[in-house]
Amino acid sequence: MFNKVLIIGCGLIGSSILRAIKNKKLARNIYIFEKSKKHISLIKKINKKIIFLKKLDHNISDVDLVVLSTPMSSYEKIIPNLNTFLNKKSIITDVGSTKENVYNLKEKKLKKYLTWILSHPISGSEVSGPQHGKKNLFENKWCVIIKDKNKTKLNKVINFWKKIGSNVILMNPNEHDKIFAITSHLPHLIAYNLIKTAQDFQKINKKNVIQFSAGGLRDFSRIAASNEIMWRDVFFNNKKNMISVINMFTKNLNSFKKNIQNLDDKHLRRKLFNSKKVRKQIVQLKQDIAKPDFGRE
Amino acid sequence: MFNKVLIIGCGLIGSSILRAIKNKKLARNIYIFEKSKKHISLIKKINKKIIFLKKLDHNISDVDLVVLSTPMSSYEKIIPNLNTFLNKKSIITDVGSTKENVYNLKEKKLKKYLTWILSHPISGSEVSGPQHGKKNLFENKWCVIIKDKNKTKLNKVINFWKKIGSNVILMNPNEHDKIFAITSHLPHLIAYNLIKTAQDFQKINKKNVIQFSAGGLRDFSRIAASNEIMWRDVFFNNKKNMISVINMFTKNLNSFKKNIQNLDDKHLRRKLFNSKKVRKQIVQLKQDIAKPDFGRE
Repeated sequence: MFNKVLIIGCGLIGSSILRAIKNKKLARNIYIFEKSKKHISLIKKINKKIIFLKKLDHNISDVDLVVLSTPMSSYEKIIPNLNTFLNKKSIITDVGSTKENVYNLKEKKLKKYLTWILSHPISGSEVSGPQHGKKNLFENKWCVIIKDKNKTKLNKVINFWKKIGSNVILMNPNEHDKIFAITSHLPHLIAYNLIKTAQDFQKINKKNVIQFSAGGLRDFSRIAASNEIMWRDVFFNNKKNMISVINMFTKNLNSFKKNIQNLDDKHLRRKLFNSKKVRKQIVQLKQDIAKPDFGRE
Repeated sequence: MFNKVLIIGCGLIGSSILRAIKNKKLARNIYIFEKSKKHISLIKKINKKIIFLKKLDHNISDVDLVVLSTPMSSYEKIIPNLNTFLNKKSIITDVGSTKENVYNLKEKKLKKYLTWILSHPISGSEVSGPQHGKKNLFENKWCVIIKDKNKTKLNKVINFWKKIGSNVILMNPNEHDKIFAITSHLPHLIAYNLIKTAQDFQKINKKNVIQFSAGGLRDFSRIAASNEIMWRDVFFNNKKNMISVINMFTKNLNSFKKNIQNLDDKHLRRKLFNSKKVRKQIVQLKQDIAKPDFGRE
């Protein structure tokens, strides 16, 4: 149990961490730093004992754990504040979706006596804001934690995520960014791109096609409704891997296009057939529910 | 009410039509022509009064309505049979996902005194086979019906789909194929292509990345698990429109890639922001449920 936990940024993820900490009784005192007045009034409804900070400065001391859950583009501004009021007993962690950039930033800007253990819970959604947070958001979900030479503090962060239900896995920053480029970042970009293409199609053809989206398009619209600040930060910070997976994707799409142009039954059908196997694996790995149509009616 | 209805091909869609007809009492006698022995034994459990045909020939006569629900690539083989035993009172309809090809085929191969009203219910899923059929599969879903000069028979087909719950809309074949290229066919191809790219990534990097698919990839795997025969038929039969929407998609993806390469905040963020609006429209149009993550846990 931590004595003082400070959550900086209390949207979907931050407020879910808050709820999970309360639920598992992992902190005696919880402090929140949040800029949005609307968010603050929503968070007050979750728990009345929470202390809201107006500034990140010497008014708070002896913080055991800081959880950064703002968009990643705010980290650089926040680090100088962390440098002023944290001490060498404190642990910093974050929930950012890319890790090489955060690793390099903390190496460069964070005071050497401070420890920042990088985390990434795989548990987002298309909705934002504390009203959508859930105490069990992290249950049975992966949380990637970046390896660190400070084993004591690393273990404290591992235990923290385990206690709120996550399955923890350790990685290096570059390994993390490479894997999530293909399993998360590219799918988001592709969803955004498909919706953009449908919007262009509507304009060019002057037809309302969105009303017929139940044929498949609607699935992509969910992911393409994700927070634009968060995803801009992800795409920019994982630029190198993004370019690489976009190129792989484009190469494969050109090949599909050729198969269609040439009515190449053999190659097209083999690819469609092989893709089917992945769904089974995903369901077996408990990464998704088994019901057709995600159980929607 | 029809006296004799014949369903040719009784998988997900055919068996759902069978169930809907039984539920709404729309036929006195239902005949099924189905090649798969496994499917036949599953269908027998739905209803014992169904009559199974072993051949499509003169053993059946005076059929009021034929519903073709095989893959589209089988239509050409079936038409000569329809020509032998149907009469000018009979109505043929189908459920194929592309319409110009079916229209041209029936103009070329079907006897002139027979009438085929083309239908396309927008109600598929990633699962196949009669075990997944549902009597309410078509309820509150679009069914596109292709305009026809035989108004009496057109109205009978319209009424049929309305009675089993569909919202009917009339289109021309080329209008239909253009619209569904963007709202259904391209999303399927893109999902297949993303899963193929993830499989290639796994091979190249020798990493099991599928286990981390909850970050977004899993959504695409559902659509990419769809029936490969059906989708080969769709891609080949809508070739011209597919090439056109693939080109639009690729152009947009190259633009996204440039935005990422140049860290072009303004253009990237505007596109991400505009895409968000489509989700709201889709939910308002009742084309999808409003719950985050499709209501999955």
